[in-house]
Amino acid sequence: MPASNSLNLSGNRFAVAYRLSCPPEDAWTRAQDICFEQTVEFPAELLPPGEIRDHLVGRVESLEELEPGQVEVLVSYAVETVGAELTQLLNVVFGNISLKPGIRLERLELPDSLLQRYQGPRFGRQGLRALLGASGRPLLATALKPMGLSPRELADQAYEFALGGIDIIKDDHGLTDQPFAPFRERVERCAEAVCRANRETGGRSIYVANVTAPEEEVLERALLAKGAGAGGLLVCPGLTGFDTMRRLAEDDRIALSVISHPAFLGSWVTSPTTGISHYALFGQIMRLAGADAVIYPNWGGRFSFSRDECRQIAEGCEAPMADLKPSFPTPAGGMSPERVPEMLAFYGQDAIFLMGGGLHRDGPDLARNSRRLLDLLLQYR
Amino acid sequence: MPASNSLNLSGNRFAVAYRLSCPPEDAWTRAQDICFEQTVEFPAELLPPGEIRDHLVGRVESLEELEPGQVEVLVSYAVETVGAELTQLLNVVFGNISLKPGIRLERLELPDSLLQRYQGPRFGRQGLRALLGASGRPLLATALKPMGLSPRELADQAYEFALGGIDIIKDDHGLTDQPFAPFRERVERCAEAVCRANRETGGRSIYVANVTAPEEEVLERALLAKGAGAGGLLVCPGLTGFDTMRRLAEDDRIALSVISHPAFLGSWVTSPTTGISHYALFGQIMRLAGADAVIYPNWGGRFSFSRDECRQIAEGCEAPMADLKPSFPTPAGGMSPERVPEMLAFYGQDAIFLMGGGLHRDGPDLARNSRRLLDLLLQYR
Repeated sequence: MPASNSLNLSGNRFAVAYRLSCPPEDAWTRAQDICFEQTVEFPAELLPPGEIRDHLVGRVESLEELEPGQVEVLVSYAVETVGAELTQLLNVVFGNISLKPGIRLERLELPDSLLQRYQGPRFGRQGLRALLGASGRPLLATALKPMGLSPRELADQAYEFALGGIDIIKDDHGLTDQPFAPFRERVERCAEAVCRANRETGGRSIYVANVTAPEEEVLERALLAKGAGAGGLLVCPGLTGFDTMRRLAEDDRIALSVISHPAFLGSWVTSPTTGISHYALFGQIMRLAGADAVIYPNWGGRFSFSRDECRQIAEGCEAPMADLKPSFPTPAGGMSPERVPEMLAFYGQDAIFLMGGGLHRDGPDLARNSRRLLDLLLQYR
Repeated sequence: MPASNSLNLSGNRFAVAYRLSCPPEDAWTRAQDICFEQTVEFPAELLPPGEIRDHLVGRVESLEELEPGQVEVLVSYAVETVGAELTQLLNVVFGNISLKPGIRLERLELPDSLLQRYQGPRFGRQGLRALLGASGRPLLATALKPMGLSPRELADQAYEFALGGIDIIKDDHGLTDQPFAPFRERVERCAEAVCRANRETGGRSIYVANVTAPEEEVLERALLAKGAGAGGLLVCPGLTGFDTMRRLAEDDRIALSVISHPAFLGSWVTSPTTGISHYALFGQIMRLAGADAVIYPNWGGRFSFSRDECRQIAEGCEAPMADLKPSFPTPAGGMSPERVPEMLAFYGQDAIFLMGGGLHRDGPDLARNSRRLLDLLLQYR
């Protein structure tokens, strides 16, 4: 995914690479259509001359045939069309044309002048490792589940996982504020349980609370989680919007790590000819939106991302983006301890391995199962 | 799209129809997978017996082969898994499985007990007609554009459109808070211009302000628009999240009509085997999220929705949903006055025809162009 087809833009334009599924002879017309559709949305012949036509309309910077019927086009846009708004950046980049078939957003090429308007991940890899006191190995994460357990039962799980040395113990993304596990009670109990286990072990595990919630409650729940002693927030940006996650990551009153979950984002990546590349969606956009760790379904599990798509995500999580910190690729979805060696070989140390159900398969002693997993990981170091 | 395959559920369960692309012999296994993936996300054999297994796990209610390789499955879920949260409803309905290929969300079947937790469109068709004083004909809408005009130029346009009798004059969805047209100045000028035209004509046109914005500014901009005299809000739920739109629609301090724009929603509907049906996305979900009018690209314009898909949207906008008001289908995207007769034949009176660039093609006198369009519409009444 690194750009063969990139260019140096002055600070007042940014660029987007799209993959068009069309015969090469149609590519210029389709690329021109993108330039207008994403900016002025107006008939070219009726545009007033001057600034609008010369600067605000998108501009085709290059075209390159990748393979028969696949053309990569690089379109540049004026920075002032988007300002510092992530919502508007996504709008100009892929708003209307997301509705047209045969256009896939491949990658963003954002100048430092634009990137400087984003804080990005608050902790990033280094910060999260420092918080957790874990170096020289991938981090381990798990999810509290199944939905339906009481806060007390979930907290018991959290305690066991922390006792066993799991670094990040997060709510399952299906836990919100249901009668069987109301938000406040769940979060208070789970945070306390992890804290208690840490006192006993000297460890630094964190509990991560799911704050995917109705718009008017997200901030309140995040502050409540902070107050209760949670060490991070889980957000599903497909449900809340990417900008809600960005806001949570940037809020200094919260100042917690942020982990993104891919729920309700699938349709962006399930078709090879439309949507957004794994690199841009789970790498670049998640970082603009402040994710310290990006959960996605690993190859070979119960989902269908390929090895290559997962590699793209890992690349997008660390590709240079001005001062934005790299985030952790966090493969999940049907992982099990047996897969640790191949995941290590594939991802190296800078990843978080998220196992949910897989940690329950070796019997009910979750602390022991966790410890075994950690030992396994250290053994391959 | 009306359900051949529906069932009567007690008030404590709701159902979702999915279209699976798979051989019929695999359908049961895939349907079972959905039941677990969307709720407990846990190995079946490890679930504790009782309430979780018997009630919280999704349940396959029926399977029906629609055509070779296409099976419709109806899955029911417990209402307490979602409560009154739209974010969590979307999560249970399609969160994780959006990431799996070959599953398309076709329609929601929500019991009144669940629908009663939603306010839905504040105005609906009747309310919007009353507000605009327009009956017995489709409503007319247009967009202020192109991006790059000053607030004064946009306000001049708005004035002309209102003078010519366009009912709804909205910001182009690309106008947010850019240096060439800052939000406050644009909204104040445009609202004032439409108000002034109304005084001159005795008309009741409204200006609709785009409040798609960074999370922490959406509410502020909506209140500012309200204070300035706007008659509605434009929201791109693909950018803000659906729940932000719902919140704006429900907020009594705002109490403005809400129009949804489809930007950044395309990947949900560009593949026939994944994503969400036009009926569910632009009909049912938009109504749950409070849209009085739902913009989408009309068939035959510069986008690629088919006649049938547009018909599904129109059906979804008015299908019975307890006390939720029907919304207006608002076809757009390369519309022109010449198409009025066929659009009338297709949609009938209960639609909003949105024309942007098309109103500029007959010369710079926008009031005259608008009047001609309105006359054309009345002529076919």
